[in-house]
Amino acid sequence: MEIKKIKRSEDYSAWYNNLVKQADLAEHSAVKGCMVIKPYGYAIWEKMQTELDRRFKETGHQNAYFPLFIPKSFFSKEASHVDGFAKECAVVTHYRLKNGENNEIVVDEDAKLEEELIVRPTSETIIWNTYRDWITSHRDLPILVNQWANVVRWEMRTRLFLRTTEFLWQEGHTAHATSDEAVAETKQMLEVYADFAENVLAVPVIKGVKTANERFAGAIETYCIEGLMQDGKALQMGTSHFLGQNFAKAFDVKFTSKENKQEYVWATSWGVSTRLMGALIMSHSDDEGLVLPPNLAPIQVVIVPILSKKEDEREAVLAKAKEIQQGLKKRGISVKLDDRENTTPGFKFAEYELKGIPVRIAIGNRDLQNNTVEIARRDTKEKQSMSSIDIEHKVENLLQAIQQNIFQKAMDYRDAHIHVVNTWDEFNDALENKTGFVSAHWDGTTETELKIKELTKATIRCVPLNNKLENGTCVLTGNPSTQRVLFAKAY
Amino acid sequence: MEIKKIKRSEDYSAWYNNLVKQADLAEHSAVKGCMVIKPYGYAIWEKMQTELDRRFKETGHQNAYFPLFIPKSFFSKEASHVDGFAKECAVVTHYRLKNGENNEIVVDEDAKLEEELIVRPTSETIIWNTYRDWITSHRDLPILVNQWANVVRWEMRTRLFLRTTEFLWQEGHTAHATSDEAVAETKQMLEVYADFAENVLAVPVIKGVKTANERFAGAIETYCIEGLMQDGKALQMGTSHFLGQNFAKAFDVKFTSKENKQEYVWATSWGVSTRLMGALIMSHSDDEGLVLPPNLAPIQVVIVPILSKKEDEREAVLAKAKEIQQGLKKRGISVKLDDRENTTPGFKFAEYELKGIPVRIAIGNRDLQNNTVEIARRDTKEKQSMSSIDIEHKVENLLQAIQQNIFQKAMDYRDAHIHVVNTWDEFNDALENKTGFVSAHWDGTTETELKIKELTKATIRCVPLNNKLENGTCVLTGNPSTQRVLFAKAY
Repeated sequence: MEIKKIKRSEDYSAWYNNLVKQADLAEHSAVKGCMVIKPYGYAIWEKMQTELDRRFKETGHQNAYFPLFIPKSFFSKEASHVDGFAKECAVVTHYRLKNGENNEIVVDEDAKLEEELIVRPTSETIIWNTYRDWITSHRDLPILVNQWANVVRWEMRTRLFLRTTEFLWQEGHTAHATSDEAVAETKQMLEVYADFAENVLAVPVIKGVKTANERFAGAIETYCIEGLMQDGKALQMGTSHFLGQNFAKAFDVKFTSKENKQEYVWATSWGVSTRLMGALIMSHSDDEGLVLPPNLAPIQVVIVPILSKKEDEREAVLAKAKEIQQGLKKRGISVKLDDRENTTPGFKFAEYELKGIPVRIAIGNRDLQNNTVEIARRDTKEKQSMSSIDIEHKVENLLQAIQQNIFQKAMDYRDAHIHVVNTWDEFNDALENKTGFVSAHWDGTTETELKIKELTKATIRCVPLNNKLENGTCVLTGNPSTQRVLFAKAY
Repeated sequence: MEIKKIKRSEDYSAWYNNLVKQADLAEHSAVKGCMVIKPYGYAIWEKMQTELDRRFKETGHQNAYFPLFIPKSFFSKEASHVDGFAKECAVVTHYRLKNGENNEIVVDEDAKLEEELIVRPTSETIIWNTYRDWITSHRDLPILVNQWANVVRWEMRTRLFLRTTEFLWQEGHTAHATSDEAVAETKQMLEVYADFAENVLAVPVIKGVKTANERFAGAIETYCIEGLMQDGKALQMGTSHFLGQNFAKAFDVKFTSKENKQEYVWATSWGVSTRLMGALIMSHSDDEGLVLPPNLAPIQVVIVPILSKKEDEREAVLAKAKEIQQGLKKRGISVKLDDRENTTPGFKFAEYELKGIPVRIAIGNRDLQNNTVEIARRDTKEKQSMSSIDIEHKVENLLQAIQQNIFQKAMDYRDAHIHVVNTWDEFNDALENKTGFVSAHWDGTTETELKIKELTKATIRCVPLNNKLENGTCVLTGNPSTQRVLFAKAY
């Protein structure tokens, strides 16, 4: 199979779609808006899951599972939630098919549900309806639960990983006795997400708070991490919501406090999704294909033996390749030996570049004679011949260096794309010509925020945490402002 | 909270339901037929997933993810599949809600889908529709893919874990160039399931082949593992299907063979589900609650310090308890130290018995003086005071012994409940009075099989693998038969 390539600089969107397809990550399915996550893409998602799940458990959370379906009436119970979520969703109305005419199967109208079921777009409602039975006393709190699940939000314009009708995610839902505790949980999970993004995905993120307009439907405060993609557009990579007592009130979830009073429970929810696959791809990849940070690569090292036609030489090279493979495995490094004989080394090299394998080791007969190997790193594409002595240690160090370099490169790009502006002209120039985040004063009203979005397509990504207070005037209205916020065009 | 107990011998069904609830494994949700899997139940399911997933990967399989929804027309493509699956299922007909009168939300009739979508009851159709694009040549084969997913089969009478409208499972779907290879895969996965059932769940299983009547809709041959529960009813615990070329023909999936011919691809599928939680509970548990095999217990050992009122004694006991905890952890044993002070040891003992923790270690001040601990095993309820020297090693051995004992006990029960009968009277007597499996001659016709089911509620669980050929006469019709098959009443 020939590898089709599209230059990132020429058509970013086509480059992305082509890379997702060529690197065997995902594809569109026969069901509009739903994707198939292919084995290689899923293996990367599994690594993400493992890393996240470990962090959730280390912070005291347990997994559980709640129903896929939510009764329609549940969505009406939290006033703002319904507007945000219950509109574009998959509605189950019947529970049986039957044989119709012409050997077709048709919906059995006798099997109409009394109340329609919604395929969950998010699970606050069904979970808080459940928590009512789990919580009586302060001794039942906190509840620290996470769910790994599929969710459905009907989307008209979809893009693989970034916006699909069905996607995979985790959603944490916690219940607390006090507001302070719930706020602390919300912030803790934001830190967990930021740590994961930066140290595993190697994507630097800005931690911040959403404006009222961008807040989760039903939240008091929405915290977020925002990344910057290589086309200068921002991507929301995860959110953590302080829900106050909104859902407890909607579903009548009370507890008896230590002071023996009946009080409503405080809530948080937080989630990241397969959208992170999009963030990963768009942050690091290049014209040759995917670039994977070693901490996330299902295969960290590939060994390609350069096989001679002489059998004894071939055997000796293969033996050495296997020896190196075993040595790396012992260090806990994930390594593949590609000894296919009907495929050329050049083809293999291109394939593993496309798939983003961080380190490639090539070894041929001359290497064997000289006790050397050729090591190529995916991130910089540097190749180097080096002694094969203590190769395990060298590869281990190299993997760390690659992880660090990928992060630093993304960080440098991001930092070079935060533009501090003071006027409307500068604001537009930054958005149009410089791309990236624009740090500007805003008068704090939703009206102005929406007007700016209408005029420029830029949205307020967040008010960064620990933002410096600074008097200024709104770039659009000239009204007074006390701090800058970050605008960007976003996915 | 008081623990409510029901005796297994008095009402098996009520005992099961009560145990699932009391041990915090699962509960019914607000959505009819759908369950909530609670954190403790889910932790056990996660252990099952980890053990199965490792075995799948060791046998060369990769995970992937396919859409939740399947277009209705897909089900008509494989003639027998539609009858088996497409009838009782959740049908999505609309993709939007809107505000109606009285502040209610209603289905938006303008958002009716052109073709209804079915929430997957199993994924052969959508997967084989996808494989058509993945397979061109024999070089693309085999495809060895597994999916962890939720599925929905509309059930009228449900029971937690055993039969629910939504359940969690894995479904393997493989594609092969030859019939032999596909049959070998089908059998391999049956062996993987049997190994998992016996060595992890500690449930002995009979491996066999289903009759035509009990076969998976669309399969050429269905292999299964069958367990026996403590009430003498059988439970199908996993199936592995040889699908022949049925789905390849239905979805036009061909490949160019080595001989350069166009041929249809050969298929298998295989699955186990959260039903295994039911098998686990019903195989080992007793009147005190759950009994978990150590290989599956999220917590293998619990340490309960018996805390004196004197602070120095309390501190010393706690320090020793922590030392033991650390020592066990180092051996890779999952151990919990319960140092709650407002809960009595007796209450803790009952709680951990209910939850099936295999080993309980109690340590008090007198133990400290004597360098002893009290060790209780959940399976036999034996308690023993023993020296705390080299306790890690003793606990390690004990966990192995418990795993073995639980399996042996289930095996003894199972073996004592296989009744070989030759007449219709014996057949009925065995079913009614002895319970368990009944090994009997059957004339090989679906007609007789269904008649026996109608008369006795017993079904043919399987024709055991490597069954001895033996001439005889059918217990019902007296017609000639060449081998015995296993009947039982089943879940």
